[in-house]
Amino acid sequence: MSKKIRKKVSEKAGLPPGSLVYIGAEKQQKHLIELISYTDSEYFFYSSENADEVLKKINPAHQSWFNVVGLTQIETISKIGSYFSLHHLLLEDILNTDQRAKSDVYEQQISITLKVLNKLENENIEYEQISLVLGKNYIISFQEKEGDMFSNIRNRLNTTGSNVRNKNTEYLFYRLLDHVVDSYFSILEKLGERIELLENEMNKPSRISVNKIHELRRELIIIRKNIYPLREALNKLIKDDAGLLSSETERYLGDVYDHCLIIIETLETYRELASGLTEFYMSTVSNKMNEVIKTLTIISTIFIPLTFLVGVYGMNFKYMPEIDKPYAYPIVWGIMLLIAVAMLVYFKVKKWL
Amino acid sequence: MSKKIRKKVSEKAGLPPGSLVYIGAEKQQKHLIELISYTDSEYFFYSSENADEVLKKINPAHQSWFNVVGLTQIETISKIGSYFSLHHLLLEDILNTDQRAKSDVYEQQISITLKVLNKLENENIEYEQISLVLGKNYIISFQEKEGDMFSNIRNRLNTTGSNVRNKNTEYLFYRLLDHVVDSYFSILEKLGERIELLENEMNKPSRISVNKIHELRRELIIIRKNIYPLREALNKLIKDDAGLLSSETERYLGDVYDHCLIIIETLETYRELASGLTEFYMSTVSNKMNEVIKTLTIISTIFIPLTFLVGVYGMNFKYMPEIDKPYAYPIVWGIMLLIAVAMLVYFKVKKWL
Amino acid sequence: MSKKIRKKVSEKAGLPPGSLVYIGAEKQQKHLIELISYTDSEYFFYSSENADEVLKKINPAHQSWFNVVGLTQIETISKIGSYFSLHHLLLEDILNTDQRAKSDVYEQQISITLKVLNKLENENIEYEQISLVLGKNYIISFQEKEGDMFSNIRNRLNTTGSNVRNKNTEYLFYRLLDHVVDSYFSILEKLGERIELLENEMNKPSRISVNKIHELRRELIIIRKNIYPLREALNKLIKDDAGLLSSETERYLGDVYDHCLIIIETLETYRELASGLTEFYMSTVSNKMNEVIKTLTIISTIFIPLTFLVGVYGMNFKYMPEIDKPYAYPIVWGIMLLIAVAMLVYFKVKKWL
Amino acid sequence: MSKKIRKKVSEKAGLPPGSLVYIGAEKQQKHLIELISYTDSEYFFYSSENADEVLKKINPAHQSWFNVVGLTQIETISKIGSYFSLHHLLLEDILNTDQRAKSDVYEQQISITLKVLNKLENENIEYEQISLVLGKNYIISFQEKEGDMFSNIRNRLNTTGSNVRNKNTEYLFYRLLDHVVDSYFSILEKLGERIELLENEMNKPSRISVNKIHELRRELIIIRKNIYPLREALNKLIKDDAGLLSSETERYLGDVYDHCLIIIETLETYRELASGLTEFYMSTVSNKMNEVIKTLTIISTIFIPLTFLVGVYGMNFKYMPEIDKPYAYPIVWGIMLLIAVAMLVYFKVKKWL
Amino acid sequence: MSKKIRKKVSEKAGLPPGSLVYIGAEKQQKHLIELISYTDSEYFFYSSENADEVLKKINPAHQSWFNVVGLTQIETISKIGSYFSLHHLLLEDILNTDQRAKSDVYEQQISITLKVLNKLENENIEYEQISLVLGKNYIISFQEKEGDMFSNIRNRLNTTGSNVRNKNTEYLFYRLLDHVVDSYFSILEKLGERIELLENEMNKPSRISVNKIHELRRELIIIRKNIYPLREALNKLIKDDAGLLSSETERYLGDVYDHCLIIIETLETYRELASGLTEFYMSTVSNKMNEVIKTLTIISTIFIPLTFLVGVYGMNFKYMPEIDKPYAYPIVWGIMLLIAVAMLVYFKVKKWL
Repeated sequence: MSKKIRKKVSEKAGLPPGSLVYIGAEKQQKHLIELISYTDSEYFFYSSENADEVLKKINPAHQSWFNVVGLTQIETISKIGSYFSLHHLLLEDILNTDQRAKSDVYEQQISITLKVLNKLENENIEYEQISLVLGKNYIISFQEKEGDMFSNIRNRLNTTGSNVRNKNTEYLFYRLLDHVVDSYFSILEKLGERIELLENEMNKPSRISVNKIHELRRELIIIRKNIYPLREALNKLIKDDAGLLSSETERYLGDVYDHCLIIIETLETYRELASGLTEFYMSTVSNKMNEVIKTLTIISTIFIPLTFLVGVYGMNFKYMPEIDKPYAYPIVWGIMLLIAVAMLVYFKVKKWL
Repeated sequence: MSKKIRKKVSEKAGLPPGSLVYIGAEKQQKHLIELISYTDSEYFFYSSENADEVLKKINPAHQSWFNVVGLTQIETISKIGSYFSLHHLLLEDILNTDQRAKSDVYEQQISITLKVLNKLENENIEYEQISLVLGKNYIISFQEKEGDMFSNIRNRLNTTGSNVRNKNTEYLFYRLLDHVVDSYFSILEKLGERIELLENEMNKPSRISVNKIHELRRELIIIRKNIYPLREALNKLIKDDAGLLSSETERYLGDVYDHCLIIIETLETYRELASGLTEFYMSTVSNKMNEVIKTLTIISTIFIPLTFLVGVYGMNFKYMPEIDKPYAYPIVWGIMLLIAVAMLVYFKVKKWL
Repeated sequence: MSKKIRKKVSEKAGLPPGSLVYIGAEKQQKHLIELISYTDSEYFFYSSENADEVLKKINPAHQSWFNVVGLTQIETISKIGSYFSLHHLLLEDILNTDQRAKSDVYEQQISITLKVLNKLENENIEYEQISLVLGKNYIISFQEKEGDMFSNIRNRLNTTGSNVRNKNTEYLFYRLLDHVVDSYFSILEKLGERIELLENEMNKPSRISVNKIHELRRELIIIRKNIYPLREALNKLIKDDAGLLSSETERYLGDVYDHCLIIIETLETYRELASGLTEFYMSTVSNKMNEVIKTLTIISTIFIPLTFLVGVYGMNFKYMPEIDKPYAYPIVWGIMLLIAVAMLVYFKVKKWL
Repeated sequence: MSKKIRKKVSEKAGLPPGSLVYIGAEKQQKHLIELISYTDSEYFFYSSENADEVLKKINPAHQSWFNVVGLTQIETISKIGSYFSLHHLLLEDILNTDQRAKSDVYEQQISITLKVLNKLENENIEYEQISLVLGKNYIISFQEKEGDMFSNIRNRLNTTGSNVRNKNTEYLFYRLLDHVVDSYFSILEKLGERIELLENEMNKPSRISVNKIHELRRELIIIRKNIYPLREALNKLIKDDAGLLSSETERYLGDVYDHCLIIIETLETYRELASGLTEFYMSTVSNKMNEVIKTLTIISTIFIPLTFLVGVYGMNFKYMPEIDKPYAYPIVWGIMLLIAVAMLVYFKVKKWL
Repeated sequence: MSKKIRKKVSEKAGLPPGSLVYIGAEKQQKHLIELISYTDSEYFFYSSENADEVLKKINPAHQSWFNVVGLTQIETISKIGSYFSLHHLLLEDILNTDQRAKSDVYEQQISITLKVLNKLENENIEYEQISLVLGKNYIISFQEKEGDMFSNIRNRLNTTGSNVRNKNTEYLFYRLLDHVVDSYFSILEKLGERIELLENEMNKPSRISVNKIHELRRELIIIRKNIYPLREALNKLIKDDAGLLSSETERYLGDVYDHCLIIIETLETYRELASGLTEFYMSTVSNKMNEVIKTLTIISTIFIPLTFLVGVYGMNFKYMPEIDKPYAYPIVWGIMLLIAVAMLVYFKVKKWL
C-alpha cells in the first residue's frame, strides 16, 4: 500500500559521491534514445538503443530534442553527460529518482527535475521522475519509463508552421514544463471527486469510510511532498537563468509558476477539507453512539424497576399479605404503568425523546 | 453540494498552451459587448453582440470602458485581444475561470483577475470571475455572466459632475476594484450571522448541527482560497505598476488593499470561531452522553442487586428456612431499602447526583 | 452574545467610495467638539457642539488638541477635515468603525486608528474606535463615545510644569497612544483571572464550564483580531514618519510598540492556556465517564449471572431433582458467593477496583 | 497555582508614563547596593543600603560592577539613574518586572532585561527579572531579590589572574549573561525528567495524570513566553551595539545566542512531547473504556437471554405443557448451554475475546 | 526509554565559560588520535593515544586528516586546539555533545558540528556528535566513539588515483559531510517501514499499537530536533566561507544541502503520516466501541421487556385471571414474539442492523 513513501536511497550510502547509480523502483526498464531535430522547415526523427549512434545524428544548426527513456543504462547516461558536458552532480540528480523537484543553473545549461503523476487503474498514483536540461539549441529530457506523455507536443513539432516548431528550444522547454504541470490538474480533479464522494458518504458512514479518509489524507500528504518544492525550483529558474532564457520565456515560465501556485493552494484546500472530513466523521459517529446509548438507557431505566417489582411478587414467602388481596394484581399493574409514564415524562423533560 | 471545489481544467491539458479555451461551468452564456465612452462633458453608451461593431465606436479622445459579458465566444475575445494587443497569456487567464486572483503588469497595460462572490437564494455562494485590464484611456472588463453588478458605478458615470466622470479610467479602475472588494463584506456579514445562529444552537444541538458546522467550515475554506491571493495581487499592482498609476491612485488602491486585509483577517477569525464551534459541539455532546450514561448506571446499580434478591426468594427449593418465617417478607423489604439508600448515598458522595 | 463579530459594513457597499458614512453600532451618539489649546504658560479649554465655533478658537501659536466626540454628524467631520485638509480616505477610515488598527502617513499629517477596549459590567468587552491625527502643532482625536478616557492626561495638561504641558503635541500624541495601549493591560488581567478561575473549576467541572471556556476562547479570538494589527501600525509610524516625529518620540513610540508586543504575546499565551483548558476538560469528562461505566460494569457482571441462577431455581418444572434436596439451597448460596468472589478477583486483577 | 500568569501592570495605567513605579509581586524586598571595583591587580568590594555612599566609592580608573538588589526603593534607582544618565524609559523597564526580555542600545550604554528562572522546592518555577546595563568601564545589574546567583563569578573576580579579572566589563557582561542562560539548562533537565516520569506513568494512568500533564504543559507555555523573546534581544545586541562591544565579545555573545537557540528548540521539543502525552493518555483511557464496555457487553448478551428463558418457565400458567414433561428441565439446560456457546463463538468471530 | 531527551549540561553551569568540560553520556571512552597524511602519490597513516607524537608527524606539504576519537581527555583536545590555534569557543562546542548542529567561520578555519544517527539493535537510535574543522591543508575530525563510520572514505583515500586522493582536503571535507548526511537516509527508510507496518496493523489494532505510535512520533520529534538545524549550518557555510571554499566545493556542499532538505521534508511527511495514524487509530477504536455498544443495546432492548413480561406471570397473586386460561401461555408467547419482531424492525429502520 505505501511503497511510495520510501526508496532505497541507502543503497548509495557509502559509495563515493561521484559514482553514478540509478536509485529507483523500476529495475527492468526499457531503454531508448530518441532525437528530434528541427528547424522551421525541416523535421527529423531518429531513435536507437545506442547512444553513440544517436549522438552522431545531431545537427548543430538545428534545434535538437534529445529524449532518454530508461535510467538503468549508466553507461549511456554517462556518454550523453560527457557529450554535452553535464555536471557530475546533475547526472547524479537525474539518476536519483528520490530527488525532490529542483532546478540548477550551470554555465552552459539550466536543468529542472520534477515528478510526473500518473493515475493508475487501482486509484493509486504513480510517480515518475522527469529531468529536463536546456542548453543552447538543445533540450535533453530524461524519463524513467517509456510512455507517450509528450506525444501531443511531438505531433505539434511535426506540424510545419506550429508555434512550437517555429520557435526555439527555449520555448519547447516551456511547453514541456507546462505540459507536466497541467497534467497535475487532472489528478486534482480526481481527488476533488473523491472528497465529494466521501462527503456524501458521511451521512451514513460505514466502517470503510475511516480507511478511505485516511487513504485520501495520506495521498494528499505524499502528493504535496512531491509537488511543493516545484514552486521553489521554478522560481529559481525565473530569477536566475544564467542568461539562457529570454524575458518572453521568463513570462511564460511565470505562467507555469502561477499554475503551480494554483495546484499547491488547491492541495492545501483539499487537505483542509479532508481534515474536516475526519472531524465530520467523528462527530457523526459520536452522534450515532449517543443515540444508541440513549435508546439503551430509556429501555433499561423503564423496565429494570418494573422487573424488580414483578420479582417481588414472585417471591415465595408464606406471609405476604398483598398476595391474597383480590385487587392486588390490577393495583400492581397500575403502579407499574405509573412508573413507566413517570419515566417517559422525565425523558421528555430531559429532551432524550 | 460541492460542485465548486473543482473545475474541468484538465480539458485543456494536452492542448497547445497557446490555444484559447474557456474553462468554466457555464457553457450557455449570454454574450454581449458594452462600451461606455465618456469625457467630463460627454457620455456615450453602445452595446452589441458583435465585437467589431463596438470596436469601431471607440473614440481615442474619450475615456472608454469596454465591458465583455460571457466568455464562451472565443473569437470575440480574440478580436478584442488583438485590437488592444493584449498578451496571449493574459487572454488565457481571462478565459480560465479556475484562475486564482492574480495581477499582471504588461508594457501597455496592467490587469487583475479576481472573483466576485454572489450569495444565492439557497445560502450557497456562487463564484464569478472578473478580469479588469487598464490601459491608457481605457478599461476592459470581462465578466462570465450578465448582471448589474456595476450598475451603481454606471449610474455615477452617467451623472455629469460626479467624481468618477470627472476623473480618468485609472480612477474608474479603482472604483470597480473597490466595488468588488466591498461586496465581500456582505458575504462576511451573512457568514457572521450563521456563526451566531450556530452558537446559539449549541445549547441544544441537534443532529443537523454537525452538518451545518461542517458546511460552514467548508464554505470558509473555499472562500478563503478565492480571496486570499487577492492581497498579493493588489500588492503587486501597487508596488510595480509600470508607471500606469498615479501616486494618488496608488493610495486609493492601498485603501482597497487595507479592506482586503480586513476581509482576510475576519475570515481567519471566522475560521477560528467555526473550529471552536466544533469543539464546543463535541464537548456538549460528550456532556450529554455522560449524563445519559450516569442515569443508566444509577438505575441499574440500584435495581440489579435488588432484582437478584427478590429472585432468590422466588426459588422453589423445598428447604428454604427463611420462607416460612412470618417477618421474612418485611425484613427483606427492609434490606432492599437499605441497599437502595446505601447506593444513593454512594452516588451522592461520588457527586453523580 | 456575539453582536461584536460583525458590523453593517455592507451598508456602504454600492455607495461611491467618496461618500462619508458612519459605520458602527451606536446610532444615537452624543456629539461634542473640544479644544485644548496650550503653551508652557497658557492653558485654554473650549467645547461646543458647533465645529465652526471651535475652529475659530484655534491659536496657531499654541499647541492644540482637538477632540471630536461622536461620529454621526458627518457634516462636522467634513468641516474639520477640510479645515485641516485631511485626506478623504483618512476621513473614511475615521468614520468606518469596522477598521482594523492602521496608521497612515500623509504629507502634513500622520494618523493612527485603533481600538479602545472597555470592560462592561456583564464581563463583556466593548470596542470603541479612536483615531488620532498628528499634524504640526495640533492633534485631532476622534472618539465614538463620550467618556473620560483621557481625563488623566487632560489633568496633567492643565498642570503647569508637567511633562506633557512643557512638551509639544508630538509628545502628547505618544502619551495618548501609550494610555490606550496601557489600558489593554487591565483587560488582560481580567482575562488572566478568568483563566485561573476556570483552571480551578476543572477539578469538578460542571456543564456550564464548557460554555465558559468557549466564551473565553471566543473573546480571546476577537480581542486578538482587534489588537494584533496595532503592532504593524505602530511599526509603520516609527519606520516612516514623514519627518513629523523626532528621534526621541520615535524611541518613546518604540516603548509603546514593546508594550504592544507584551500584550500580543500574553494574548497568545492565554490562547494556548485556554486551548489547554478544553483538552483538560475533555480529559476530565472522559475520566469521569470511565469511572461511571466501570461501576455499571462491575455491578452488572456480578449480579446478572447470579440473577440467572436464582431464575433457574424459580422455574416450575415438575421434575427438578435439585429442588427437593435439603442442602440444595445453601449449596446454591455457596456457588453464588463463589461466582461473586471470582468476579471481584477478576476485577482486582484487571485493576478496575 | 497560577499567580505567575499576570501581574498588576494595570496599577500603572493612568499614571504619567514618566513616573517610575515598581511593578511586581514582591513588595517587601531587601534593599542593598553592592560595588565591585577591580583592575588586574586590585579588587575592592563595598556594599551599603545608601546609594550615595556607594556611588562615592566609584573609581573611574577601575572596572566597576554595580549591583542593585531590590527594586522598591524608587529614590535609589532614580539616583543611580541620574548618576549614570540612564534613559528614563530604561529605568521604567528595569522597574517593570512584567517586561519581556528586551535589549536596548543607547548612546552611552547598552542594556538587556531578562528573566532568571529559579526552581522552588514545590516544583514551581519562580521568575526573577534581571537587568544589566553596560557602559564604558562599568556594569550595573538590577536584581529583584537578594540571592547568591552570581556568587561563582564574584569569586572568580576576586581571584587574581582569572580570566574575568584580567578582562574588562564587556567580558564580565558576557559572563553574567552566559551564567543566566546556562542556568536555564537545569530547569530544562527537571522538565525532561518530569516528561519521562509521565511517559512511564502512561502505562497505568491515574486520575492525577491528567492534572500532571496539564500542569506540565502550562509550565512549558509560561517558560517559553519568558525565554522566547531573549533570542531577539540577544540578536539585537550583537547586530547593533553602538560600538560598545568588540568583535571578540560579539562572538562570545553569539555563543550565548546559540545556547539560547538550543534552549528554545528543546522547549519546543518538550512542548511537542507533552502534547503527545495528552494524546497518548486519551488513547489509553479510551482503550480501557473499550475493554470495560466489551466485558459488560459479553456478560450481558450471554445472560440476559438466558434469564429470559428461565423466567418463562417460572411463569405460573396453569396450562404449560412443557412443565410436566420429565425431560423438560435437562432439555432447557441444554438449550441454554447452546445459546451460551453460540454467543461465545460469535464473540470469538468478532474478535471481542 | 527516554535518556536521549536530556543531557547533563547543567554540570557546566557555574563553571567559568572558558573551562573545557566534556558534556555527554559516555564517560568511559576509548581514546585515540589518527593521522592520515596524503598527496597524489603518497599515503601515510599513523595512530597513537599520545597527541604530541601524532602532531610531530604532520607534514605541512601534505594534506592531513587528523581524526580524534574520544572526547574525555581534555588535555589532548587542548593540545590539538593550541597547535591548530582553534578558538576557545570552538573547543567548547566540540566537547559539548548537547550542541545543536552548527557551523562557524573563523579566520583560518571553518567548522561544523553535527549528529551521526546510529540504529541500535533494539530499534532505538543513538546520537553521536561529530565535529569537523577544515583549515588550509588539513581537516580535524572529532568523534565521541570509536567506530568505522568513515572506513569507506579511508579506503578510497588509500587508493592511488581515486577522486578523493587527488583532490585536496576541501573535497575530503565535502565527502565526510556527504557521508554523514547520506547515512540519515537509512534511518529514514527504517522509519518508513515502521510507519507502513503500523498502517497495516491499524485494521486490527491492539493495545500495544498506541504505544508503538507514541514511540514512533516521539522518535520523529527527537530526530527532527537533531537534524533540522543542520540545514541552517550548511547554508551558513555555503554563504559565508571566509574564502576557504572554492566555488566548486560550494556547489558540492549545495548538493549536501539539497539532500538535507529531502531528509527534512521526508521527516515532516513522516510526522504528518504518524499524526494521521493516531487519528486513524482513534477512529477505528471508536468504531469498534460503537459496534460493541450497538450489540449490547440490541440484545438488552429486546430481552429486557420480555423478561419483565415473564416476570409478571411469575407473580404469585391469588387472583390473576389470565393464569387459568388455557390459551394464556401460547398467547403470551405470541405477544413476546411480536415485541421481539417489532424491536428488530425498529433496529432495521434505524440501520443498527
